[in-house]
Amino acid sequence: MNEFELIAHLTRALPTNDSVLVGPGDDCAVLDLGMKDRVLLFKTDAVVEGIHFTADTPPEKIGHKALARCLSDIAAMAGTPTCALVTIALPRDFKVEVLEGIYRGMSALARRHDVAISGGETTTNPERLLISIALVGWAPRGKATLRSGAKVGDAIFVTGQLGGSLAGRHLDFEPRLAEARWLAAQFPIHAMMDVSDGLAGDVRHILNASRVGAVLLGKSIPISRAAKERTRDLSAAAEGQPSAPLAPGPRKSRLLAALTDGEDFELLLTVASRDAVPLLDTWRTQFPDVPLTCIGRITAGSGLKIKTEHGVHELEAHGYVHFA
Amino acid sequence: MNEFELIAHLTRALPTNDSVLVGPGDDCAVLDLGMKDRVLLFKTDAVVEGIHFTADTPPEKIGHKALARCLSDIAAMAGTPTCALVTIALPRDFKVEVLEGIYRGMSALARRHDVAISGGETTTNPERLLISIALVGWAPRGKATLRSGAKVGDAIFVTGQLGGSLAGRHLDFEPRLAEARWLAAQFPIHAMMDVSDGLAGDVRHILNASRVGAVLLGKSIPISRAAKERTRDLSAAAEGQPSAPLAPGPRKSRLLAALTDGEDFELLLTVASRDAVPLLDTWRTQFPDVPLTCIGRITAGSGLKIKTEHGVHELEAHGYVHFA
Repeated sequence: MNEFELIAHLTRALPTNDSVLVGPGDDCAVLDLGMKDRVLLFKTDAVVEGIHFTADTPPEKIGHKALARCLSDIAAMAGTPTCALVTIALPRDFKVEVLEGIYRGMSALARRHDVAISGGETTTNPERLLISIALVGWAPRGKATLRSGAKVGDAIFVTGQLGGSLAGRHLDFEPRLAEARWLAAQFPIHAMMDVSDGLAGDVRHILNASRVGAVLLGKSIPISRAAKERTRDLSAAAEGQPSAPLAPGPRKSRLLAALTDGEDFELLLTVASRDAVPLLDTWRTQFPDVPLTCIGRITAGSGLKIKTEHGVHELEAHGYVHFA
Repeated sequence: MNEFELIAHLTRALPTNDSVLVGPGDDCAVLDLGMKDRVLLFKTDAVVEGIHFTADTPPEKIGHKALARCLSDIAAMAGTPTCALVTIALPRDFKVEVLEGIYRGMSALARRHDVAISGGETTTNPERLLISIALVGWAPRGKATLRSGAKVGDAIFVTGQLGGSLAGRHLDFEPRLAEARWLAAQFPIHAMMDVSDGLAGDVRHILNASRVGAVLLGKSIPISRAAKERTRDLSAAAEGQPSAPLAPGPRKSRLLAALTDGEDFELLLTVASRDAVPLLDTWRTQFPDVPLTCIGRITAGSGLKIKTEHGVHELEAHGYVHFA
């Protein structure tokens, strides 16, 4: 049983009640708590030393990342974050300056997005620092963008550029809250989520939730400068990725980085094809500094395919590519 | 700087916004999210292997305790819990059966109180299991019971019996949700919280928040059977507690256990003295199996005193007692 299967197994029979509009499996839980025009968004996310950051990561960036990841999930639902609680599990030898730095980084980000930090807890985790953030926010009733709404024929878009986030961006990205709210206010967004596991895996989450397939356009996928620099001199083999069927040369490992590196925290969304051009036109006026790219379309069926100069191939889990 | 001073230092300048009615320092954050007759209650709590449970604790009880602690904080505000998110950080060698047991214990408790578990996250914490629960709930607008409302002359009550929880009760206590809601519906509760750090420390939280003092009646404090059994053959010295000024013999260590053991998860509350007798009378009819005991009164000033057969003494932090 892999991680995803285990979670699916464990969460299948969890208790629910009338307040739950959207339960496990989307970016946030969506709750009806009797607000007239709004629904509640509820999310938790944890970062762990040695996994999401290192002992050398500046404390401000640890705090920033911990909160930004959670905010990105609110953005994925086109929501507005309201209030965070912060659980910090401290190792035995923690320094007060580290704790202060974490709160400083978190607070600066929270202030930019008018998010309150209303307490939480410190506890002990002797071997390593762990931070868990809980966040509540809201979306206009009926307007929270889910993973489950993609329709056959939709155009698939992604904000920003993908890959290479671990070179630095994962520690200082700004969650796409304003962009997401603007998108949902301007266009009927059929499905949206944030890219955290890597595009290849995350597109599949939308496909599974929406019971559709997709074809991605390899040459349209926006590749970050960090991914290009990191992969400039690497062969695919040197990266240990079985990506041979993708285009040869540096290009293939760059594309694979964009598809699978993860921690991009960009928005992935689908809209009706008739909205694609108007969306791009108005986006460029509204957010001239943030790329928005059409990277493929939703198809009938259930598979995820990628079109490159070598043809159309199945894109399997973790970005592994097999000839059709 | 001790833990409480550090937290006070760090949380002093945290960002807030218009939604926050009660920020850090009470049992839950209280938020106004535009529900007509209700406020939102928001709480997180974490349990860590080796601190809150051991490697030998049955997984069902770990799950129960993790959620029950959080529910107890909603009870402290006379609220109704709605939905929990569960973050489980798993050690490298975790067994699927342990994870299943945790969810089983948590789910059974959640169902009894109509709480949804709408997902959360699993992550990795290589050396030990850590569970963090985030919970939202609600209270009628203006009716959430805070720590800050105690008034001079109030009678102080506690539910259940105190001390010795670590002998077992801390793993299977039932949060006092129904009792708390009944209390708040029947009587003007001036202040309420749950007893988690131990009565001596927790009364002080009410005193500090309400800017009042208190006198506890040593002989009225309800001592659990577990505390009595545990301390039957122990001298105070054997426990390493500097409790000599309290009454000699087994009684002194029992009282100290009740004051300082912690993890009782009972309700501590104050009401106007005129409500004390009606409260006791109606409580006995409503909850015949749960003791409710008047243990002292709120006084002017700021100190916490305890009255025993040896007189009235200052009760200092951690239950240490000094002669006045």
